[in-house]
Amino acid sequence: MIYDCAVIGAGPAGLSAAINLAQTNRSVIVFATKEEDSAIYKAPEINNYLGFFGVSGKELLRSFYEHAKKYNIEIINRKVINFYKSGSIFTINANNEFFEAYSVILAIGTPKKTLLENEAEFVGRGISYCAVCDGMLYKGRVIAVVGESVEAEEEAEYLSELAKKLYYIPLYKKNEFHFKDNVEVVLSRPKGVYGEDFVNAIELEDKILNVDGIFIIRKTMPADQLIYGLEFTEDGHIKVDKNMQTSIEGLFAAGDVVGRPYQVAKAVGEGQIAGLSASGYVKRIKEALTKKD
Amino acid sequence: MIYDCAVIGAGPAGLSAAINLAQTNRSVIVFATKEEDSAIYKAPEINNYLGFFGVSGKELLRSFYEHAKKYNIEIINRKVINFYKSGSIFTINANNEFFEAYSVILAIGTPKKTLLENEAEFVGRGISYCAVCDGMLYKGRVIAVVGESVEAEEEAEYLSELAKKLYYIPLYKKNEFHFKDNVEVVLSRPKGVYGEDFVNAIELEDKILNVDGIFIIRKTMPADQLIYGLEFTEDGHIKVDKNMQTSIEGLFAAGDVVGRPYQVAKAVGEGQIAGLSASGYVKRIKEALTKKD
Repeated sequence: MIYDCAVIGAGPAGLSAAINLAQTNRSVIVFATKEEDSAIYKAPEINNYLGFFGVSGKELLRSFYEHAKKYNIEIINRKVINFYKSGSIFTINANNEFFEAYSVILAIGTPKKTLLENEAEFVGRGISYCAVCDGMLYKGRVIAVVGESVEAEEEAEYLSELAKKLYYIPLYKKNEFHFKDNVEVVLSRPKGVYGEDFVNAIELEDKILNVDGIFIIRKTMPADQLIYGLEFTEDGHIKVDKNMQTSIEGLFAAGDVVGRPYQVAKAVGEGQIAGLSASGYVKRIKEALTKKD
Repeated sequence: MIYDCAVIGAGPAGLSAAINLAQTNRSVIVFATKEEDSAIYKAPEINNYLGFFGVSGKELLRSFYEHAKKYNIEIINRKVINFYKSGSIFTINANNEFFEAYSVILAIGTPKKTLLENEAEFVGRGISYCAVCDGMLYKGRVIAVVGESVEAEEEAEYLSELAKKLYYIPLYKKNEFHFKDNVEVVLSRPKGVYGEDFVNAIELEDKILNVDGIFIIRKTMPADQLIYGLEFTEDGHIKVDKNMQTSIEGLFAAGDVVGRPYQVAKAVGEGQIAGLSASGYVKRIKEALTKKD
């Protein structure tokens, strides 16, 4: 099945986009990370989303999910690793499961800087973001896994079955780790990536580790790694026009990722515009495809 | 008292702006027309404002008013006729009562075309929008009153006490009118205004009436009549930057008046941006004024 729209992110912007697509009779799939990862989830009280007063971020997010449920919107907990456009179809790699859609909306929250020096250069040449996608390439090799959150440990476990030696570098605080014997937990901040044609080392604050590959497991992927050719503003947000379309036709963005203020109402409003714009775009695309046939 | 911000319009955009100003500790006054005049009020069901499902426009608007009440926001039912900026202070004429504010937010709903041919040219030279403001100028003269809604009859009654002869031209459907004897109800559509230095006639579909002045009583004033120097987009919306500031510093706009889609979530999101932008602007203005002293 080709979805009318794939929405990446299930915060206020993503869910607003999704309900607006559903209301205009478009099929939509939403890729979510864990609820707890949403910035809104941690807010003790939100008073400036019109119509709700004195609610916690968690409660507000719950109302948003309830709303999406009324439309039977398909929300799946899979991290999107990257996606590309071929002809008028987007193909989305969600941790090695592939989905197709006529349009995509990026609602992935506050923009994150690419973490390590030289990281972007070595993507596909020793830098990977997905254990199940690329793990087999490193069978019997020495690798490092940088984990942004505790969920990354699962991917590290999977990789430790394949690798000869695995350095696990957590970016979060935790005292005990239970890995196989070939895993060494290294408590140091990663700084950069080195190599020639291919990665051969990761630099930490206090040492350099020689490795054949580096898996960087983040809660969400930085936008510049998700798709090639996306344009950004000077302050690091995704550039969009007034219909919330990015520099790539059929790809829209909304919420914190397109600019400040990082607020719920702004995100919901932009999500609506993106959803309705995507809906109109899909209608035109499908009409054009029908004519061609 | 000089308000930090005057919000013109109490629909989704205006109320969202107001609560965001209140939350950042700014004093705010909201000018409202009747609730029933809001476009949202008539919507039988609204399903695409995230967090509310299956509510009527009336119910949703009621929730929005309740939210504003939590912040004790001052909402007054007075029509804004026009306003101007002098130094860093805006002065707002609300049916002949005057208010001052450091910033203004226009949230007046879908843009309306200026109604009559030549109308804009003759403003202040025989065209008036406010009976109590300009009535005395037409004492003993012949005038026409164009009424967009039944509320205009009250202003016509007031004017009939002053004028020698008054033609009342309703733009709405109604069978019986109870005016003084010097009032003639004319059931015809007005088309244009004629005169030389000053208005001397109003053209209707089927005749021309010689008059000394014309009062046009609309539910809300068109944006281009509210303040001089406002810039518009080609499709007739108020031009704003990404902070929702118009071509006039300290004057912001949000909601339907700045562009499509004419939807609640978009309006609420833009209202938030306008409110927070105005809040930041007022902070800077006040700091600058303090330094000057």
